[in-house]
Amino acid sequence: MRLRRKVGTREWLETHDRLVVLDGRKYRGEWRERSGGRPIHAELGMGKGAFISRMSARHPDIFFIGIDRYDELIRRSGEKAYAVHEAAGRGEPDNLALVLFNIEYIEEMFAPGELERIYLNFSDPWPKKRHAERRLTHPRFLEKYMRLLNERGEIHFRTDSASLFEFSLNSFADCGLRMADITFDLHRDGVPEGHVMTEYEEKFTKQGMPIYHCRVIIGKEALAEHDRLRRQRDA
Amino acid sequence: MRLRRKVGTREWLETHDRLVVLDGRKYRGEWRERSGGRPIHAELGMGKGAFISRMSARHPDIFFIGIDRYDELIRRSGEKAYAVHEAAGRGEPDNLALVLFNIEYIEEMFAPGELERIYLNFSDPWPKKRHAERRLTHPRFLEKYMRLLNERGEIHFRTDSASLFEFSLNSFADCGLRMADITFDLHRDGVPEGHVMTEYEEKFTKQGMPIYHCRVIIGKEALAEHDRLRRQRDA
Repeated sequence: MRLRRKVGTREWLETHDRLVVLDGRKYRGEWRERSGGRPIHAELGMGKGAFISRMSARHPDIFFIGIDRYDELIRRSGEKAYAVHEAAGRGEPDNLALVLFNIEYIEEMFAPGELERIYLNFSDPWPKKRHAERRLTHPRFLEKYMRLLNERGEIHFRTDSASLFEFSLNSFADCGLRMADITFDLHRDGVPEGHVMTEYEEKFTKQGMPIYHCRVIIGKEALAEHDRLRRQRDA
Repeated sequence: MRLRRKVGTREWLETHDRLVVLDGRKYRGEWRERSGGRPIHAELGMGKGAFISRMSARHPDIFFIGIDRYDELIRRSGEKAYAVHEAAGRGEPDNLALVLFNIEYIEEMFAPGELERIYLNFSDPWPKKRHAERRLTHPRFLEKYMRLLNERGEIHFRTDSASLFEFSLNSFADCGLRMADITFDLHRDGVPEGHVMTEYEEKFTKQGMPIYHCRVIIGKEALAEHDRLRRQRDA
């Protein structure tokens, strides 16, 4: 998602350095310290930040990291986060970082085991076959995520795209990952208590379109198996 | 699927005992002998038998077992099988058994490890929640199948029902089974060479309805894990 660039965006980012991280590599291996020991949940591709803002306001015991690659989205998310936290009576967000970074290099942003959860919300479906490798649920990305997630690690995935969902289920299966709560219509029975929607989700749900959802559980065994295969391959 | 009962069906079944098995428990533990050492593929709920007839005519190196619980379907399948094998120039089917049996008791029909593949084609979706346990992909059935399949075992599942498919993917995942070739539209790119359709599949495909498909790979590890959990539970 790109947005028209507003005047003064770079300046805004630079002057909000308690929330905004412009050098994505800066905290690698030190996120736990920065999070104050809280579990870390990252949203890869946060768009305009409604989800990460609401989640961080609602769950003070978790440290959230929103990542996107466009200045303007970081700014929009930042403004949103301030507004949402204030409205929730929580003052300035102290459990949130917004990071300008390209997911491609996510391993340069986090050390192994530093993440407990990854959210993939309405990721770009890249519908053309020749762009399949760019999909954030492609096995080459899942391999990266598995290195960064800890033993309690999970990936939570939502999309409106049936074809991306089909592709993603196969990716999860091919990587030997365990799935749970697979649903072809997340809001079939209404919005569950405590469920936080993204901007896209609100829009599509209003239009009556189904939202696909799946949870992926990493687990000790998958990590051990993954490690074994990697070592076998590298030997 | 029930059919109106034709006159003489029971007689027909009894006089075709080279193909028809009326006592489903008779060959338990001896199917390998009856199959002449060939791998055994069973279709649970064969309906009118188009699939099992065509598959058995096409793959003489595999022994097929079609199971259904209604006399009339066994007869229809039997007549179909004779016709298809004759049309294929293969004479009387020698790699096929049609068994009158209730899948509920499938463990009384096969000994552990006796099956190499299970086909579930357009199984009754039992759409009401309170009937979920009757769905042939319910974990309680998958538990049975896992005991009967060998190390190379697979389950091949096709349905036109999105809700049964969603339910089944969760069942497979919950049982720790490995999935592959998950597709929401099996005939999106036309009918693949060598693909054998069922009656339902032909009908739905002509109507332009998508067919959902998934393959489940049992594998040594899942069997060992399953065995471990079962022993733990029984201890």
